[in-house]
Order: sequence, then structure tokens, then C-alpha cells
Amino acid sequence: MKKIAVILSGSGVFDGSEIHEAVLTLLALARAGAQVQCFAPDRPQMHVVNHLTGEVEADDTRNILVEAARIARGEILPLSALDATEFDGLILPGGFGAAKNLCDFAVAGTECQVADDMMLAARQFIEAGKPSGYLCIAPIMLPKIAGKGVKGTIGTDGETAQAFNLMGGEHRSCPVDQIAVDEARKIVSSPAYMLAGNLLEAEASINALVTRVLEWID
Amino acid sequence: MKKIAVILSGSGVFDGSEIHEAVLTLLALARAGAQVQCFAPDRPQMHVVNHLTGEVEADDTRNILVEAARIARGEILPLSALDATEFDGLILPGGFGAAKNLCDFAVAGTECQVADDMMLAARQFIEAGKPSGYLCIAPIMLPKIAGKGVKGTIGTDGETAQAFNLMGGEHRSCPVDQIAVDEARKIVSSPAYMLAGNLLEAEASINALVTRVLEWID
Repeated sequence: MKKIAVILSGSGVFDGSEIHEAVLTLLALARAGAQVQCFAPDRPQMHVVNHLTGEVEADDTRNILVEAARIARGEILPLSALDATEFDGLILPGGFGAAKNLCDFAVAGTECQVADDMMLAARQFIEAGKPSGYLCIAPIMLPKIAGKGVKGTIGTDGETAQAFNLMGGEHRSCPVDQIAVDEARKIVSSPAYMLAGNLLEAEASINALVTRVLEWID
Repeated sequence: MKKIAVILSGSGVFDGSEIHEAVLTLLALARAGAQVQCFAPDRPQMHVVNHLTGEVEADDTRNILVEAARIARGEILPLSALDATEFDGLILPGGFGAAKNLCDFAVAGTECQVADDMMLAARQFIEAGKPSGYLCIAPIMLPKIAGKGVKGTIGTDGETAQAFNLMGGEHRSCPVDQIAVDEARKIVSSPAYMLAGNLLEAEASINALVTRVLEWID
């Protein structure tokens, strides 16, 4: 049975993991018969956003791991406990949490830094030659994680694609149901809700990515 | 196009809507080509539960509608705005939110009361002869909403089934992938995570319920 680590970044599109993407990732992995363990950083979120109004709740604080546990029904571990030797592959759903809690791209742009726990986890998989899948905005971390020339997609958004390239990546423009593949590093990315207009488009994007990750493990 | 109202009760299995059930409900409706509008009560949750530890966070308060907006990506309306004349059917995912925020069964048992906004919304559909679907623990409200003799399932849990009957319902024991149907009232229920051991079982339960709701609309 293939064992996949899934890194979440909270619970909610504007300050954490995009919930549909996270659940559809877990569903696609379940359908494929993969065994899954969720992880998330055990530290405060950058923001708490009211998802009804879109406003930042300046007085509120929430913990990334505790909120991500909502998606995982409590079955989740701190990201610092992720040991790539125990898994065959890694998948990251998107949502602003990927750009706020796993790195700070949402506020720092091309000057962003990837959080230490995220960097350590991601590089373990690359160095071990194990595949990784990055959905939605999560691929924006790839130039910092995987180094110059890494191929990836955040869909078709010009400004974000330019940022990907300025950080040293080679952006591939990609429609919602297709994937960008970096064969050398075994990294696949797909746009999901960077482009998806509904759940069916998000599902197509996610299924294509999950399929590719699992193919590398065969 | 069939128009379905989905009532959420927060975001997270222990104090709100069960997230997998909510997303899989939206996915099944999207696949069937239905148009969906989410609703949730605009009032405080009964509890805020830390989903990592399972403990109630006594000092925290969250609003049901604001948290449910995380699942709906902001596209959600207050339950008080739900007008059944604008919809063809109603579906309620489960999670403890159904038994804490839509009624108080989780603390009051058979003495529970259904919240006024929930009662009003649910009865509109029954009185209009429009179908309703209740997942997981949500059917526990049916005896109070739909009256004596209503048929429904909460799966196979003996104590909860007994409570359903003590409140005047006629409980139907039901495996995870099957539905209980009250033809006269056009109400369908299925166990979802009352019995599901994984996402695939939950999906089977939800798909069976969504299919039945949509068949009534044909």
C-alpha cells in the first residue's frame, strides 16, 4: 500500500488549507487505495480571516495544526514529526494557508521565505527521490524549496507566474485540468482553485495530480 | 436546473458540520448538475472544540455562519433568509453541529429542542411537498420537525435509535451505503459518518441520499 503524507495549513481558503481541495485530495487518495497521514505546523496562523466578510480578525489567533485537525477529523500530526523515510510521496493542497502559513508569499512576494518545518519536510522527499504534488498556490514555494529551474504551475495568473520565474523557477502555464511536471525532481503541480470555477474543475485538477504522484511510486 | 438548499452548522465534526460530508454533498450535487446555495444560522456555536485534543475551548466563541463560510468559500447566506419557494429540495450534512447548533440533542437528548430558524426552514420544505435529505446525526431532529411516525435512520447505534423512537419517530436500522425513506413526507436519511470508517464509505452514503433527493424532483 502506497503511503502518502498530506501537509495542511489550517482550515479555510482565506487563512488555511482550501477545504474542498483538501477533502478531494484525501478522496482521490482513498479511491486509489493509498494510506494517508495528515500533518500541519504546530504554530499560530499568520491571519484569522472571517470567511463571510473576507476581513482579517485582528484580535483572533488560531493554531494551524489545531484548525487543520478539523479537516483531518483529529487524525493529524505536527509537521515537525514528518519523516520522509516512512512515506512514498507528499501532497500539498492549496488555499491561502500555503502562502501565509507554510511560506509568507502572500505578504512578502518574491522576497518570501519558506518556513523551516515546511522546507525540511519538502526537501526530504526531493532528496530521497520520492514524488511530491503541489496544488493551487502551493507551487509558489517550489523555487525556494527545489532550486533554480524547477518547473511548476500556478495556472495562468500572469503576476504570480512572473513571481515564480523571478524566484528562479520555470513557470508552465496550465489549464485547470492539466498538470506541470518536473521529471528530474519528481514534482507535479496543478492549478486547482487558482483556476477552478467549481468543485468539478477542482476535482479534475486534483485527480490528475494525485494520479501522477502515485504513478511515480509504481 | 434543480436548485438545492444545503444547511451547514459550522465547520468541523466536533462542533459544526462534518467537513467531508459537507464537501461530498456539494460534490455529488455538482456532479448531478444541481445548483446549490448554502445556508447556516447567524448565531454563536454551542461549543468550540479543539479538534486535535477533543476538548471544549471554554473561553472561545465562534459564529456558526462565519465558520460554515469556510466550507462554502464565502458563498453562504443566513438560515433565516432561506425561502423554500426558491428551491426544489433541502439537504443537511451531519457532524456534531447538527446536534449542537441546529438542535440541542447532544446535551438534552430526547428533551431536545430544534432551533426556531432550523424548524421553520425544514417545515417549509415538508409542507410544500419538496424533498429533504438528512445525513449522519442530522436525522435525530426529524421526530421534532416532521412529527410522529416519521421514518429515518441514524445508522445502527442502539441508544440513538432508541432516542429517535422515544421522540416519536420510527427508526430504520441502516448500513452505511443504504438510505431510509419516508415516502409520505419525502424525507430520506443515511448514516454517513455515523457508520462510515473512511471517505469512500461516507461518499457511498451521501451519494445514495443525494440521488434519492434528486429523483423526487424529476
